[in-house]
Amino acid sequence: MQRILSSELAVHVGEPVTIAGWVHRRRELKSVSFLILRDRAGLAQVVLPPGAQMPPEETVIEVTGEVTANEVAPGGVELISAQITVLSGAEHETPFEIFRPTLSPALPTQLDHAVLSLRHPSRREALRLSAKATGAFRATLDSLGFTEIHTPKIVGSATESGSTVFGLNYFGTPAFLAQSPQFYKELMVGVFERVYEVGPVFRAEPHDTTRHLAEYTSLDAEMGFIADHRDVMKVLREVMAGIMPAISEIEVPEEIPAVDFAQALKIAGANPEEPDLAPADERAIGEWALREHGSEFIFVTGYPMSKRPFYTHPDPAQPKYSNGFDLLFRGLELVTGGQRLHRYEDYVAALEQRGEPIEPVRSYIESYKLGFPPHGGFAIGLERLIARVTGAANIREVRAFPRDINRLAP
Amino acid sequence: MQRILSSELAVHVGEPVTIAGWVHRRRELKSVSFLILRDRAGLAQVVLPPGAQMPPEETVIEVTGEVTANEVAPGGVELISAQITVLSGAEHETPFEIFRPTLSPALPTQLDHAVLSLRHPSRREALRLSAKATGAFRATLDSLGFTEIHTPKIVGSATESGSTVFGLNYFGTPAFLAQSPQFYKELMVGVFERVYEVGPVFRAEPHDTTRHLAEYTSLDAEMGFIADHRDVMKVLREVMAGIMPAISEIEVPEEIPAVDFAQALKIAGANPEEPDLAPADERAIGEWALREHGSEFIFVTGYPMSKRPFYTHPDPAQPKYSNGFDLLFRGLELVTGGQRLHRYEDYVAALEQRGEPIEPVRSYIESYKLGFPPHGGFAIGLERLIARVTGAANIREVRAFPRDINRLAP
Repeated sequence: MQRILSSELAVHVGEPVTIAGWVHRRRELKSVSFLILRDRAGLAQVVLPPGAQMPPEETVIEVTGEVTANEVAPGGVELISAQITVLSGAEHETPFEIFRPTLSPALPTQLDHAVLSLRHPSRREALRLSAKATGAFRATLDSLGFTEIHTPKIVGSATESGSTVFGLNYFGTPAFLAQSPQFYKELMVGVFERVYEVGPVFRAEPHDTTRHLAEYTSLDAEMGFIADHRDVMKVLREVMAGIMPAISEIEVPEEIPAVDFAQALKIAGANPEEPDLAPADERAIGEWALREHGSEFIFVTGYPMSKRPFYTHPDPAQPKYSNGFDLLFRGLELVTGGQRLHRYEDYVAALEQRGEPIEPVRSYIESYKLGFPPHGGFAIGLERLIARVTGAANIREVRAFPRDINRLAP
Repeated sequence: MQRILSSELAVHVGEPVTIAGWVHRRRELKSVSFLILRDRAGLAQVVLPPGAQMPPEETVIEVTGEVTANEVAPGGVELISAQITVLSGAEHETPFEIFRPTLSPALPTQLDHAVLSLRHPSRREALRLSAKATGAFRATLDSLGFTEIHTPKIVGSATESGSTVFGLNYFGTPAFLAQSPQFYKELMVGVFERVYEVGPVFRAEPHDTTRHLAEYTSLDAEMGFIADHRDVMKVLREVMAGIMPAISEIEVPEEIPAVDFAQALKIAGANPEEPDLAPADERAIGEWALREHGSEFIFVTGYPMSKRPFYTHPDPAQPKYSNGFDLLFRGLELVTGGQRLHRYEDYVAALEQRGEPIEPVRSYIESYKLGFPPHGGFAIGLERLIARVTGAANIREVRAFPRDINRLAP
C-alpha cells in the first residue's frame, strides 16, 4: 500500500492506510498502549492493545491500520487495528529522550549526539526556519534583478585579516579558506551589477562564545551603481521584509530607523570618544529603537573608518567616518554592510594612509583599474539571524553540525 | 536624473534619460562616432559627433541624452545629444577585447584576467544559466517536500577516499575539506526525510583535464522511505525536467530510458567483463539513446559493487551489482546516484567484505544504530551540467574563478 503522510490521515477516516516514520514516543497505559509515529509532516497516534510489544524510540517503522476519528488524539485521528513492520535501527534505548518539550542534556552532549538531537522538534524547526529565511533572501533579491553566484572558498591570500584564517595545503602551495566572499562578490559586480551568494564562510577565531562559529552560512549581497550606502540599506530593508514574514511575526518598518554613530554613542550613554559600540551599547540602542520607533530593527551608520576594513568607502563630508553601517536586530549586530571603494587610486591611498601593505591585496585592487561602478553590499549571518528570532541561547543550537575551536565532529 | 536600464530605453523615445554602465565598444566612422554601453540588461548605442573623445573600453560611465528611434540601432533606439560622465576605471586599454563574438586569447590568459573575461557576453551567459539551473533545482525539490540544508565543509576524517582530499590545520588538529556532503545529507534524512544542499565540494584530484575542478558546486539531494533506487531516479527526472526548460530547449522525456550495466556494455560493444564504462562507452550509449529513444538522457543502472563506494546498497537479486545509477547526458556522466545502506549491521558487513577499515567511518556508521529509513540520492555537478548544455570545451569556462592543480588565483 502506498505510504501516506501523517498530515493526510484526516481525509482517510474509515480507510486502511500505511504510514511510515520514526517511533517518537511509547505510552503504556493499563487498558491501552499508544505509539506516536513521527514523519516529516508531523505526528500520528497508533492505538495498540495493552502490553503490546513496541519497538524503542527512533526505530523506523511502517504501520498499516485503519484511520478512525478521535477528538482527543493529535490531529483528531488515530490508527487502529495496526500492523507494525520494523524497517531499521534503534535496537537500544536512545541516550536521551527527544519527545519531551525541551532537550534535557547539556548542550555539548546534544552536539555529540547531533544525529539524535536534531530530530527534536525544536531543533528541526530552527533548521526549517533557516531554509525558509534563505529562500526568502534569494526570492527578494531575484525580484530586484540580482544574480546568484558561486565564488571560490579556497583562496591564495589571507586578505581580510591574517590572524583568523584557516591555512590549507593546496597541492603543495599554502592557501586559505575564504573568510567571506567579499572581494569576489565585488568583482562580480563588474559582470552582473547585482549579485548574491549563499555559502559557507570560515573563521579561525579562537572565540568560544555563544555567538561565534568557525564555519557558518553567510547570506551575501553586493550591488553597483549606488549613490552611497543608503541605497544598500534600502535593499537590505527589502530583504528583511522578505525574510521576516517567512519565519516569524516580527514586523519590519517601511523605513527602518537609522542613527549615526555619534548619536548611537549618545543614546547608549557611552563615551563620545569610543571608536566602536560595545555589546551593552548595542542593547541600549535596540531598546531605544523599540521605545522611540516601535522597531525591532535599527541602522547605525557612519562607523569610524578606523574600525572598518580598508575597502570601506569614507563619508565624503567627514572622511574619518565611513559609509558603512550595521543593522541591529533586538539589540544585536545582525548585518554589516556599506559602500566600498571603487577606484584603484583610492585603494592605494587608503592602504598607504593606514600603513597596511599593498602586496597581499595587490591583485584584488589592481582589478579596479578596469572599471567598477560605485558599489556596496552586506552580509547576513544566517545562524545569528535564526538564533535571534527563535531566542536560542547559543548559536550552536541552530546549526546542523556546528564547528568551533573545540568541535570538529560529528 | 534617475538611471534607467538599456532595456527600458524603447519606452522613453523623445525623452531625456540617464543610463549607466561600461563602455563596451567604440566605433569611429568618418561622419559619426558610436559608443556602445553595456549594463546588466544589455547594450545601448550612444551617438556622438565624429572625432568625439570616448573613454576606453570597460570605463564605467553615466550618459545623459535623448532617446531617439533608429531602426538599425540595437534595440531600435539610440541616445543622441549625449553627455558622458566617467565614474571610474579603465584609464588604459584592456589586455584583450571582449566586444568580439568570441574571446580570442588562450584559456589560461582568459582565466588570468577573469575579472575582464567574465564580462564577455558568452561567459556571463554561462554563469547566468548556472544561476537559473540552481534556482530550478531548488524550486523542483521544494515542490516535492524537500528541505534545504547546510552541512559542514570542514570535516574530521577523510571518509570517501583519502587520496583526493585537501588537508587543513584546524586549531592545531588535522582536518579535511569535505569532498561531498554525502554522509551529512544522509544523516539529515533522519531529520527531514528529504533534503538538498547547494554548496562547494573540494577534490584534491591531480587531474588536469577539461572536466575536473578542484572546487565546484554540487547540487545534492537525498530522500528517505524509498523502495529502491528507482524512486530516486523518478525524482531526478523531475529535477532535470525542472532545470532544462530554464536553461535550454533540451527535452526531458516523461520517462528517461534506462539500461542495466550489462546491457550498457553490450550497446557500447565493450568487453562484458569490464567493471566500469570508459568515456568512449558512455558516448556510444548516449548515441544509442538518441537513436533508439530520441532522448539526450539515459540512465545506466546496476553498476558493479566493486566500482561503487562502500555505502552503496547492493541489488538484492544479484548482490555483486548495485542499486546505483548514473545519468548520462549527451554521452557524458552528469549525475551519480543510488540507494545507500541504511542498517548498521549492513555497513559493518560491507566494510568487512571489502577489507576496508571501520575506524575512519565509525562515527558515521554508528549513527545507523539510531534508525534510518531506506534512502538514496544523487549529486549533480553544476559546472559539468552547464558546460555540457552550452557546449563549452572546457569546464573552466563556466566557473567564475576556477581552481585546479595549477590555479589558485584570481
